Parts: sequence; structure tokens; C-alpha cells
Amino acid sequence: MTWKIETVVDDLRAARKKSRRLQNGEVRKAPLPSARALGGAVDDINAALFPRHAGALDHSASGLAFYSGARLNQALWALVDQIENEHAFDAETHAALANARSAEEIVSEFATLLPRIYETLESDVQAAFEGDPSAQSTEEVLLSFPGVKAVVHHRIAHALNALGAPIVARIVASLAHAAAGIDIHPGASIGGSFFIDHGTGVVIGETTVIGERVRVYQAVTLGAKRFSVDESGALVKGQPRHPIIEDDVVIYAGATILGRITIGRGSSIGGNVWLTRSVPPGSNIVQAQVRSETFDGGAGI
Amino acid sequence: MTWKIETVVDDLRAARKKSRRLQNGEVRKAPLPSARALGGAVDDINAALFPRHAGALDHSASGLAFYSGARLNQALWALVDQIENEHAFDAETHAALANARSAEEIVSEFATLLPRIYETLESDVQAAFEGDPSAQSTEEVLLSFPGVKAVVHHRIAHALNALGAPIVARIVASLAHAAAGIDIHPGASIGGSFFIDHGTGVVIGETTVIGERVRVYQAVTLGAKRFSVDESGALVKGQPRHPIIEDDVVIYAGATILGRITIGRGSSIGGNVWLTRSVPPGSNIVQAQVRSETFDGGAGI
Amino acid sequence: MTWKIETVVDDLRAARKKSRRLQNGEVRKAPLPSARALGGAVDDINAALFPRHAGALDHSASGLAFYSGARLNQALWALVDQIENEHAFDAETHAALANARSAEEIVSEFATLLPRIYETLESDVQAAFEGDPSAQSTEEVLLSFPGVKAVVHHRIAHALNALGAPIVARIVASLAHAAAGIDIHPGASIGGSFFIDHGTGVVIGETTVIGERVRVYQAVTLGAKRFSVDESGALVKGQPRHPIIEDDVVIYAGATILGRITIGRGSSIGGNVWLTRSVPPGSNIVQAQVRSETFDGGAGI
Amino acid sequence: MTWKIETVVDDLRAARKKSRRLQNGEVRKAPLPSARALGGAVDDINAALFPRHAGALDHSASGLAFYSGARLNQALWALVDQIENEHAFDAETHAALANARSAEEIVSEFATLLPRIYETLESDVQAAFEGDPSAQSTEEVLLSFPGVKAVVHHRIAHALNALGAPIVARIVASLAHAAAGIDIHPGASIGGSFFIDHGTGVVIGETTVIGERVRVYQAVTLGAKRFSVDESGALVKGQPRHPIIEDDVVIYAGATILGRITIGRGSSIGGNVWLTRSVPPGSNIVQAQVRSETFDGGAGI
Amino acid sequence: MTWKIETVVDDLRAARKKSRRLQNGEVRKAPLPSARALGGAVDDINAALFPRHAGALDHSASGLAFYSGARLNQALWALVDQIENEHAFDAETHAALANARSAEEIVSEFATLLPRIYETLESDVQAAFEGDPSAQSTEEVLLSFPGVKAVVHHRIAHALNALGAPIVARIVASLAHAAAGIDIHPGASIGGSFFIDHGTGVVIGETTVIGERVRVYQAVTLGAKRFSVDESGALVKGQPRHPIIEDDVVIYAGATILGRITIGRGSSIGGNVWLTRSVPPGSNIVQAQVRSETFDGGAGI
Amino acid sequence: MTWKIETVVDDLRAARKKSRRLQNGEVRKAPLPSARALGGAVDDINAALFPRHAGALDHSASGLAFYSGARLNQALWALVDQIENEHAFDAETHAALANARSAEEIVSEFATLLPRIYETLESDVQAAFEGDPSAQSTEEVLLSFPGVKAVVHHRIAHALNALGAPIVARIVASLAHAAAGIDIHPGASIGGSFFIDHGTGVVIGETTVIGERVRVYQAVTLGAKRFSVDESGALVKGQPRHPIIEDDVVIYAGATILGRITIGRGSSIGGNVWLTRSVPPGSNIVQAQVRSETFDGGAGI
Repeated sequence: MTWKIETVVDDLRAARKKSRRLQNGEVRKAPLPSARALGGAVDDINAALFPRHAGALDHSASGLAFYSGARLNQALWALVDQIENEHAFDAETHAALANARSAEEIVSEFATLLPRIYETLESDVQAAFEGDPSAQSTEEVLLSFPGVKAVVHHRIAHALNALGAPIVARIVASLAHAAAGIDIHPGASIGGSFFIDHGTGVVIGETTVIGERVRVYQAVTLGAKRFSVDESGALVKGQPRHPIIEDDVVIYAGATILGRITIGRGSSIGGNVWLTRSVPPGSNIVQAQVRSETFDGGAGI
Repeated sequence: MTWKIETVVDDLRAARKKSRRLQNGEVRKAPLPSARALGGAVDDINAALFPRHAGALDHSASGLAFYSGARLNQALWALVDQIENEHAFDAETHAALANARSAEEIVSEFATLLPRIYETLESDVQAAFEGDPSAQSTEEVLLSFPGVKAVVHHRIAHALNALGAPIVARIVASLAHAAAGIDIHPGASIGGSFFIDHGTGVVIGETTVIGERVRVYQAVTLGAKRFSVDESGALVKGQPRHPIIEDDVVIYAGATILGRITIGRGSSIGGNVWLTRSVPPGSNIVQAQVRSETFDGGAGI
Repeated sequence: MTWKIETVVDDLRAARKKSRRLQNGEVRKAPLPSARALGGAVDDINAALFPRHAGALDHSASGLAFYSGARLNQALWALVDQIENEHAFDAETHAALANARSAEEIVSEFATLLPRIYETLESDVQAAFEGDPSAQSTEEVLLSFPGVKAVVHHRIAHALNALGAPIVARIVASLAHAAAGIDIHPGASIGGSFFIDHGTGVVIGETTVIGERVRVYQAVTLGAKRFSVDESGALVKGQPRHPIIEDDVVIYAGATILGRITIGRGSSIGGNVWLTRSVPPGSNIVQAQVRSETFDGGAGI
Repeated sequence: MTWKIETVVDDLRAARKKSRRLQNGEVRKAPLPSARALGGAVDDINAALFPRHAGALDHSASGLAFYSGARLNQALWALVDQIENEHAFDAETHAALANARSAEEIVSEFATLLPRIYETLESDVQAAFEGDPSAQSTEEVLLSFPGVKAVVHHRIAHALNALGAPIVARIVASLAHAAAGIDIHPGASIGGSFFIDHGTGVVIGETTVIGERVRVYQAVTLGAKRFSVDESGALVKGQPRHPIIEDDVVIYAGATILGRITIGRGSSIGGNVWLTRSVPPGSNIVQAQVRSETFDGGAGI
Repeated sequence: MTWKIETVVDDLRAARKKSRRLQNGEVRKAPLPSARALGGAVDDINAALFPRHAGALDHSASGLAFYSGARLNQALWALVDQIENEHAFDAETHAALANARSAEEIVSEFATLLPRIYETLESDVQAAFEGDPSAQSTEEVLLSFPGVKAVVHHRIAHALNALGAPIVARIVASLAHAAAGIDIHPGASIGGSFFIDHGTGVVIGETTVIGERVRVYQAVTLGAKRFSVDESGALVKGQPRHPIIEDDVVIYAGATILGRITIGRGSSIGGNVWLTRSVPPGSNIVQAQVRSETFDGGAGI
Repeated sequence: MTWKIETVVDDLRAARKKSRRLQNGEVRKAPLPSARALGGAVDDINAALFPRHAGALDHSASGLAFYSGARLNQALWALVDQIENEHAFDAETHAALANARSAEEIVSEFATLLPRIYETLESDVQAAFEGDPSAQSTEEVLLSFPGVKAVVHHRIAHALNALGAPIVARIVASLAHAAAGIDIHPGASIGGSFFIDHGTGVVIGETTVIGERVRVYQAVTLGAKRFSVDESGALVKGQPRHPIIEDDVVIYAGATILGRITIGRGSSIGGNVWLTRSVPPGSNIVQAQVRSETFDGGAGI
């Protein structure tokens, strides 16, 4: 005797019904946007931007153009499909809401942004190369730096989010989290020459604004200090609540910066610092001193 | 002239022999439980619980039932196979140990738990939606939140662990670690409406007990303070050594809570706090203040 | 009307040209080293070292030898291909630089190191088993501990780096980062019986030296304090700038240790400690005390 | 110097333009029906009909029902997609032609026919088992007889053709040709207990009518003798032009039967016979005698 | 409104029940032997026999040995699995029948036959090279001749059939039919230096006996003339009923040779000949003459 | 106890040594041309020629150009690799033989031929549409006619053979045989508007010459009558030995035409005819009459 599969399926169906979410008896609907499909699209965009790193063999001008163009076109149509899925889901849940622009319009505008995105990514790669003494070449940076991978995802996700595909953008961001342990909300605005070193555990919130030439190390949090609630006690969504980081700031590993504060241009924030107020340009902030003493235990599990 | 492959293989064989572990001359044995197979089983369970998010197209009642039932049944038989592998390995190494229950019995009971697991996961999703101002819908939460993915894995692993498949459970937990950077031991007991935001670096130990409606941010550790050793100096395994977190507690990013202490209901533990003693209900704990001063170096690598 | 794919491709081509990097009109060049191919090679090496964990069914002496030998040989030839790609790229960019040794020579020497690497990995597995009260067997450790997975990658990457394949080595390291959130530079020198528990967020820099029987928890940074610059202001690469950790040291979660300092044998460094000076053998270092007080906000995003 | 890829692509484009077929400047159209997708659908239908032969492990009533139902539902939706592609193509080319029925209607009716198709296929399998002295079981017949595989494809293709999906049906037939070297036009009407032994080279034309319990060997042709042309000299399509084979006829290897003739019930047509006139029930037809004589050459290539 | 999937599944279940075959309410049984798994095993055996043709890169003695040994061992264990499935099916259907030998015994003996099989295949390849004026090398023969591919399958299937795995053997034969349009029953006994040229449509029956150095062209049938029936009218299975072809015979395209007759050593059978009586050694048999005359129709479809 | 894998591998190695073929102790050599790689290249060429049939979604001029160009370029580089493998094998076996042209030269010329090949294939498709009353559109012809698939392969193989890649060409031809049961030697010269209907079993020899607008049915052989041998008794390779088929000839199913004879323009050759002498233009050839008589047996197996 094994499990009663029919009973389990029936019970699941009953439980799903109680949850009053999407499955409500219609035969066929658009699927939700697919992480797998978007992962493929990001890979294709990446290959269109950096064809040799993706393994293109033919480096003649037209060889690269065909390779790049074919993968890009494939990516763009895949984005159209996934954004149409997002819009179909919107239409189900917010009947009144009209998506101002079609998926094809969104993707068309996204396509025109790509050359600029490429240039910004080149500045990011250069910043990584210049900021890390262990890097021997910009190629090595592109091939092996997890922070760079996360930034490539972010610049794509940010553009899609701004153009009206927030769920698709968020899924793209989650792919970067899975690959690099770095969580950047697509809403965050980040200038050029941005470098995240090591990067595991970095969290950058939705309304963060980052200037040019900023460098961030692992486990840095740029978060919210407090969430506003409305009269009914529900969270108010979308308000500015994360830091503004001006140009040329460095934030060392483990620093936590919270709230709509401003870190002035050229400042340096030390490792593990906890900071909830603005600091003027050129500040150097460090953590309280540690003491040496007898220590009686561990932190393992 | 290249490598002498036969010599290398012989040397490896000799080294393996010295290590006195499993490979000792028999022809065929059960393989060890397979992470790849278990990854497939978790995907199938996930698809059975949330069929539309997994891409099911036919949303009629029977369409969902067939989709859900087929993937679930496939998952359950895969679990039987992997648990049989675990039991075979147990039998090899602890000849005296009888597995009290067969793999089919374990999986049958696991199957009956799934509707309840589904309901708890729905509460987790709802908690994430309510706790994160950036979330626009519960669908977005399910599709893109790494913390939710880790909790899905945990609730499956926890049930399997309790039913007598600890290695299989641990491998399921390790899949969540690989996907989300979140390390929850299958033994940890976690109540409903649990939300891990961002989540990279979260560690939750084996004997941790977490109540209802708890919220945890990235890099939180719920760990052991000290490990007991027996007379021979070996670690004593299995003893309660991790915190108890009561209902409605919030633990901010980077907090470290160690030992069998209790965090009273409704408490709030600030970011980066290091805590090794119990606190009463309603406590608000924050880190020591930081100072601003000249800072002379970096934290990069 | 959709996007003008030809225009986008042309603009990308123009942008790429400005960036003055690799694509400059030649027809065919060696591809850059491929993360996918190296991932396959690491899997194959892993299977050659631990055949039963990789699923080998035939446990007779010759069954294991054929399985192990075939996968190892496949891995070694794949490494030859990828190292040849690295050398071809070197030749393009640094025309004057002669690779002292051929890819086949490098891989041949790497092959002879594998039995020793295997023995060291066995000591690492044993250390994990002994150091974690939740581990029930060394098999469970090998199958499910992310820290062990990262150390397997590191010991391979370290050998390849030392033998003259630094980009290939760095890509291998980046695979461990993607899988486990642990970032160990291939240059780091690490003794036997090394155990990283949980491990998410661990960063170990290029010139770090770690002794025997060291244990490290999640989110530990062994980093550089300051980067030297030459007269032109460019970073000086390759200089010793990371800590020396002597034998039998334990470093708890979140500790940050920066600069070319020495942590004396048998020391214990507490969680979240920030340390930039050497400490003598047997030291116990802990973080400053936390205070309890009213707390007025959150750390979420 | 290698090829000028741009020139080749331009020349191909020019040549394609001359051919005045489908590619005429629009951005996106439905793809044509896909052989790959239809191959998957046929596999799924086959698995729904014969679940154990497709590898289903759970043989409980509900286990088989879920397996069968899930694969069948997947197949049916895939057919809907492909038939919609066929209809879209029809609409392009024959603007005036309305498809009387939607793809969903066609597939819905197809679904109701499947139990009857299953029963007929069981009679075919039984006929193969009884008609071939080398067959040891009906399972062996289902697993290894190419003729049976072709008949499974045909019964699916025939139903789809009759319901209004002729291109999809023809592609399904072409899959049988690729797998078994047997070419049965979907239009052919074939009764139960039909057995094609060996089967390579069998050709059965569009308007063929075959009764019950007919057996056919390899290389048999049931073809047209002459094609009618209309006043303009073009072929008249769709007219009855292939043989009628009544019940209980056996046609041995290599026989060629041409034109709208009738082979009477219970007849036997010998190997390699060439037949262009009707024969009454119970006929036995054989080829002209061969002679023995000096032979001076070969037939090889 | 679409199909009622539950009704279709129920009807199929009812139809399956009527057919009184294998699916009768038990939960789990061995699957039937799998064509996919056997296809993999044949590929592996082929690679073990002809490693360079399968793409092995390392041509050193030990490189080839590891490659060959690993793929062979994998194939042999896969055969054990599939033969166990066959035996389990036998046990279900013929409860009284004991399989005299275990799957491992069968495969062990099969393994010892492989070197001899390899030598015979080399003689076949050589015969093809010498017998076809278009062949430039034996490598070309091995890489591209469909007849050779069919003979490789046959020699494997014949050994497995003789050792007691007839269904597995028949599936292996059906793979050759799918790949080359050649249908050789595993029971047929075929001497060395055997060459099938072109081969589409060749059929060789179960009790055929073929000597050394025989050459056969496309569409040749070596079949049975009449089937014996027992008192109840059922076919008597297993009796000698196919031709004996002695050494050095050539049979040209389309010849049909039927019944337990003997074609004497050194004979030549012309194309399209229909032959049902024995011929002495050295015979030359040709078809009746054709006549030229007005021809009034086609043979198309 | 199972098989002794080492003994089997050793015996295979010994047998391989005896066969004095390629494996002779060197470490690494070019692999032989790969059927799998060439299958991919043919698929890519097919997609470049008929992009919509291969599933291209974007039908704008530039969308098709990128799709077509990228797949074509990929195919051409794959051909370069495989032809280099063929040349490396030539160099091994015929040390004296210089390949007159490099692989890149061959492929470059092949690329310039593709537009012409495309036009010829369009004429073939049109001929199929016009010649088969069951065809409803040229799209259906391209998607489902096995004879057309074989002709696509042949026109590619023929060009490669003429340019100096005979083994690669032969493998391409063998792919058509596997897919359609049609065996056309790459050397055969075939004019435009060529149509093979059904096609299973068609064999067309190396030196065959076929004019314009020829139609051929299944199981037609255009073969050699006798092979020339030199003084040592070895076959003379390469001599004209197959038929010349002039324009506008139709050859019905099963006809066998052997030797360097000429079938005059506009002739019609009846089904199953055996023909070894030339016939003048406008001939109509039919088979000898069949007789009806008592028939006493079968042709099954």
C-alpha cells in the first residue's frame, strides 16, 4: 500500500481553492512570466553585447553582426512573449488597469537603449579592473566576477522596469541573486563605472540612487529604515526610502546604510558600519573599536 | 608526452583505500542519494503545489488535477528511490540499525502532509507580500523572492527529516543554499507566515524553534554558542543549542543570535546585533553606536 | 512596427569599436576560456575523485578505475583546450609574453597533483564531520555541505593558478561562488583539514595564507586593508596584502580580518569582529558589547 | 580570407524573393506547424494509450490515470497550437477560405475518438502477434515492430486529417516514414486488425480503402495508376484513384497494386506481383515464373 | 469549452481493462525494457569497439582503454537493468517459467563474446570496402554505410538473443530498422565478411542461416514461404522456415528467397528474382525478360 | 561475480591491434568527421535556406537576414572543422597526398554556391507539388515529403563532394538514408525539378547522371551492372558505371536500371522493370505480364 494520490490531489485542490488566488476554473490562460525563458533571454542579450565571451568564433565584422543580431532578435521576441504574459496577468487581476504600452513598444524602446547600456557596462568592467589588484585583464573581469554579472542583470532589469515590465524585471533581478547572491531591486538607479567586489549578500533597495564611480563590497546593505503605513495599517508602496550615494563613494564590506539619507561625494564608509544619518562629502566613517578579552563560546551551528 | 593516466588512477585508488571509506571492492551497491534527482523531485512538488507558476496551461479543474497529480506522483516515486538509497547506505554503515519504516511508508506519510504544507506556504507568501513595500502581488513574490524559494525547500526538507530521511532532507536544504544563499537546517522548526527578505547569508541551526509571523532579513544567524563534547572529546550531536524565536519577532539584517536563548514575543532585534542572552517579550535591541573618524584603509581584496 | 534590429546591431558594433577591446576585425580567433566547459571539467574531476558520490554503480576495483580514469582523462583534455584558449588570449594581448609552459605540460603536472589533492580533501571532509554537531556521516558532508563544495573547487583552482593558468583558475573559483556564495581567490594558500561552515559570504583574498585545521564560518572576510599604488596612481598588483592565519584558528561568523597581519596559532576570533592588527597565539578576540535600548526603525528594503 | 557571409545572405534573400513564396516582409507571423512539436505530441499520445510501454512506474488505477491524463492533456494542447499554425497559414494563402472549425473544436473531437482508436490499435497488435511466428508476446510486438509504430501514427493522422488538419496529419505521417520507412497517406481508410510486417517501403495512397484483418508485407505499393488532369493540364486532386482492399486479404512483399480496383475478400496477392485490374474474392495471384540461366552481371552500385 | 479530459481518461481506462493485458491494478512493477535505454547501450558498445569513430580524443593505449572500458561497463550495467526488466515481465506472464540464468550471468557471458564480435565486424567492414567501388577507406565505410550499422546492431542482438534475452534483442534489432530500414531478426545466424549494400528494405528471417562472405543488396527478402499451424489453427513458432545461404553467395537487389531452401555456395541470385526452391552451388539465377511496349499509366500515388 | 571488465578491455585492445587500423599508440589525433556535427550543420543550412520552415518568428527582411546569416555562418564553421578532420585523416593514411585546397577554401566556395542550390531546391519543391495529386501546397511538400528531404541533403553533399570533401559528403548522404531510406551517392549529378515520390529504397549510384524534370518513385535502383577489376583482381574505383537519365523521364516504383546505359529523353519506365540496355527517347517500358493461378504459400517471416 502506498499513498492515495487521488486524495492528495483533491486535498491540494481544496486548499488551493481556499487561498482564493489565480486558479479559478477557466480552461486556459496565459502562463505567468517564466524565469527559465527570461534566463535564456538574458543569456542571449549578454551574447549580443559580448559575443566573444559567449563563444562566437567568427570575429569578422559581419560574422559578429550576424551572431549578435540573431541572438538579440531572439532575446527581444522572448521578452515580448514574457511581457505579454505579465500584461495578461495584470489584466486578470486589475481589470481596470490599462497597460499604457504594448509589449512590442516596450521591447522596441528597450532595444534602442542597448548600445547605451553596453557603454555603461564597459565603464563598469573598467572600474572593476582598476579597482581590484587581483584582476589581470578586463576579459578576466567579464568572465569571472560575480559582481559584474549582477550589474549586467541589473542594467537590463532597470530598463525593463522603467519601461513598464516590473514583474519581468524583478525575475531578471532574481536570476542575478541566484547566480551571485546579490540582490539589487530593478528600481534602483545606478550610475556608470559601478563596481561590486565579491558581492555576496549585497542588498540595494528599490529607491536607492547611486552616482558615478561608486565601489561597494560584499554584504553591504543600502536599505530602508522604516516603512510608512497608511491609515489602514498597510504598507505604503513606492515611496523614496533608501539612501542616495553620491559620486566616488566607497562602501566597505558589511556596512549597513539605511533610510533616505545622503552619503556625500567622495566619502568612505568603513566595514560593518551601521549608518542611519546623512554624512557630508569627503566623510570617513568607521566602526567602534573592538576589544580583546576572554571569549567563551562559538558561533557555529 | 602527456600525463600517465594509469598512474594517476592507480594513485587515486591507493589514496582512496587509505581513506577507509565506502569504496571497498564490492561490485555494485546502491548509489548514494542524488542531488540531481532530488532537485527534480523538488521541482515536481513545486509544480504540483503551484501549477500555474510552473507553466501549466490548462486551468480547468481537471486539467490542473492531472498536471498536479502526475508531477506529484513522479516526485513521490523519485523520493522513494532516493530514500531507499539512503537506507541502503545506512545499512552498510550501521549494520545494527534497522530503518523503522520503509521508504514507501515515509513517502506515503509525506504525501498526506502536503496539503498542510501548501497552506503554510500560502501564509508565507502572504507574509512576504505584506512585509515588503516593493512587492506588487503575491505572484511576483512566488516568482522572484529567493527567501520564499528557500522556505519552500525547507518545509519539504523538514517533513522528510522528521519522517526519517535525514540525508535526503539535508540535500534538499543544500539545494536551497545553492539557489538562494540561505542555509536552514532541516531540523529547524518554523511556524507559519514566515518571511525571509533578501536572505543571502541567513543561517538557521538544527534545533532552532521559530514561532508564527516571524520576519528575518539577510545575513541573520540563529546559531549555537558552544558545542558540548563528551568524555572522549567528541561533539555531542543533536542537543538543543539554537535559539527559540517566539511569535511576531523581527530580526534585522546581519544580527547574530547564539545559543539556546529565547527571544520574547514581539521583540525587534536590530541589524548587526550580537546577542547571546534571552530577552523578554517586546524588547528592542540595537547595536552600539558608531563613531565618525579618520579612516585610513580599505576592506577590499 | 517593432525595433529596427539592423540599427541596434550597428550601434552596438560602433560602441564595441569605441571600447577598443578584443573584437577588431579578424576572422577567427580562439574563443575565450569557457565557464561551461570548465564546469564540466570540474564535475568530471569531482567524479574521478569521489566516484560513488557522482553515481558510479560498479564498485569493483576495476569498475571504479575505468569510471574514474575515463572521466578524469576527459577532464584533463578539456583543461588542455581551455588553457590553450587562455594562452592564445595572452599571446594576443601581451605579444611579448611567452607562456613558459604548454597547456599539456601544465595539465600533466596538475594530474600528478591530484592524489595529494584528494588526500587533502579527505582531511577537509573529516574536519567538517568533526566540527559540525549536525553532521551524521562524512558522506552527508560530501553530498550536502556548500563549504566543502567550495573547497573542492578551490584546491583545483589553486593548483591550476600556481601552474600558470590564472584565468582558468579564476573561472573555476567563480563557479564555487555561484554555487555556494563563497569567494576564494585561487591564489590563496590553504592547509589541510580546513572547514568552512555554512559559508555564504566568505571572502578569502589572493595572498592569504591559512595553516592546518582552521575553521571559518559564514560571512568571514580575510581581506586587504589598503591597496598600494605606483607613481602613476595605478594599483600595484600581486603584493602580499591579506592575513596569515596560523594553525588551529577558529574564525566565527561575520568577522572581518584585514591586511598583512598574523593571527597566531590556536586563536579564536569572535563573530562580527573587525580586526586590522596581528594577534599572538592563543588570543580570544570578541566584539564590543551591545546595549539594549529603544529602537525606532527597521533594516528592511 | 573566408566567405563573405553578407553577400551570401543577400543572394539568398534575393533568391527567396524570386520564389514568390511566404517570406514577404511582414514582421511576425505564426510559424508553420512543427515536426518536432508534433513528434512530442505523438509520443505523449502513445504514452497515454500505452503507459507501461512508455515507462510509467505506478500501475495503480489512479497512478495510471494521472500519468495518462497529464500526458494526453499536454498532447492535446500541443495539437491545438500546431493546428492553429496550420489555420493561420491557410488564412494567409487562401484568404477566402474559412476554417469551418476552430483548432480547439477539432482537438476536442479528436480526444473523444481516442478510446476507439485505442481499441483498434489493440486489434492491430493482436493481429501482429497472431500473424508473425517470431512474436512471443503482444508486448514484444508493441515494443519492437516497426509496422505497428507506423499504424499508431496512421490512426492518429487519419483522425486529424478527417477533422480538418491535413498538414498536421501529413507531418505525423512523415514521422512514421522517418521511423519505419512506411508511407501511409493520412487519407487512407484502414479497418481493424491490420498488420504490416517488416514494412520498409510500404506505400499506401490517399484514397485507398482497406477492410478488416488485412495483412501486408514489406515494399507493397497500393498506388494510383494514372493521374487525371483538368483542361489546363493541371492534376485533379482528391479523386478516388487507389485500390479497395476487402476484408481478410494478404498482400505479400513487393506487390504493386495500382488504380481504383478492388481486391476481393480473402484474396492472396503474391510477392512482387504487378496488378492493375480488380480480382474477385478468394483469388490467388502470383508472379510469372523465373528461369535459371547464365547471368553475366550485378546490380550493385 | 474544450475536451473533457477526465471522460477521455476514464474511457481509455475502461478500454484498457477490456484488453486484458498488463495493467491490472498493482502499484508498481518493473517497467518494460526501454528502447531509449537500449539505444544508449548500443551506442556505448559501439564506442567501446570503435572508440575513435565515436570521437575519443586520446589515442594512447591507456587513454583508449579507459574510454573503451568506461563506456563498455556503462553499457553492460544498462543491459543488466533492461534484461532484469525482461525477466520480470516473463515472471508476470509465465509464472511457471524460470529464467535459467540471471541478467548478470547473461551479460557476463555477452561481455566475453565482444572481442570475437569485434573481429567479425572488422571482417564485415573489410568486405564492404572490397565490395563497393565507391568506398575509399574502411573508415568511410564505418562512418557512413547503413548496412554496416545494421550489422553492428545484429551481431549484438544475436548474441543477446542466444543468451536468453529475446525481447531486449528484438528491440536492438528494431533500432537498426529505424536507423537503416533493414530488418534482421536476432535469431538469424550470419557468418563473417557479410556485406549489405544500400540495404533499405532488406528482411532476414528468424531461422535464416548465412555462411561466410555473403553479399546482399537492397530490398532482398530471405523469408518464410508458409507458416505451420497446430491443431488449433495457431501458428507454430520457432520452426526452421527461412533459407540457408551458403558461403560466397551474392544476392542482388529486390530478390525474394522464401522457405527452408538452400542456395548453394558461390551462387548469384539476380535482382528482383522470386525463388522458392533450392539451387545447387554455382548457380546463376535471373528474372524473366522484360518486354518493351506501349505503356498506359503510372505507379504513383 | 560479474564480468571481468579489465580482461574484456584488454582483449578488445589486442583485437584492435590485429586489425592494423587507426589506433596505433599516439596520444591525440584529430577525431574523424562526426555525423552528429554534420547533422547539426545540415539543419543549420536548411534553416538558412528555409527560415520560416525552421521556425523563425521574425519575418521582416532584417529579421530573416540575421536568423539566416547566423545559422549559416555557424554551419559553415562547423563544416570547416569537419573537413579539417577529414583532411587530417587523409594526411595520416596517404602521407604523400596533399589536399589541394584548405577546408576554408572549400567552404568559402561552397558558400557561394548556396543561392544557386536554393533555386534548384525551389524547382524541386515545385516539381513535387505539381507531380503529386495529394499535395495541397509547396509548404506541405517542404514540411513532410521524405523525398524532398533527401534531395536537400543530396544537393549539399554533391557540392561538398565536388569541392574535395568526399567523406564529409558521404556522411551527409548517410543522414538522408537514415531519415528517408533513400541512398543517393554524393557523386551523382542531378538536374533541377527533380522529384522522388515516397522514396523508400531508392538507390542512385555514384556516376549516375540525371537530367531536368525527372521523376522517380520508391524502390527505384539506378545501379551498376558489373564492376571492373584490375590485374590484381581489385575493384577499379571511380569509373562511369551507372545510367544516364535524360530530361523528362519518369521511372515508376521498383524499377531497376543497371549499367552505363542511357534512358532517352521523355521515356517512361514501368514499375518493377529490370532494364540493362539503353532505350531511345520517348520509350515506354513495362514489365512482363503476370498470370493468375493457384498460389500455395506466403512471403512472411
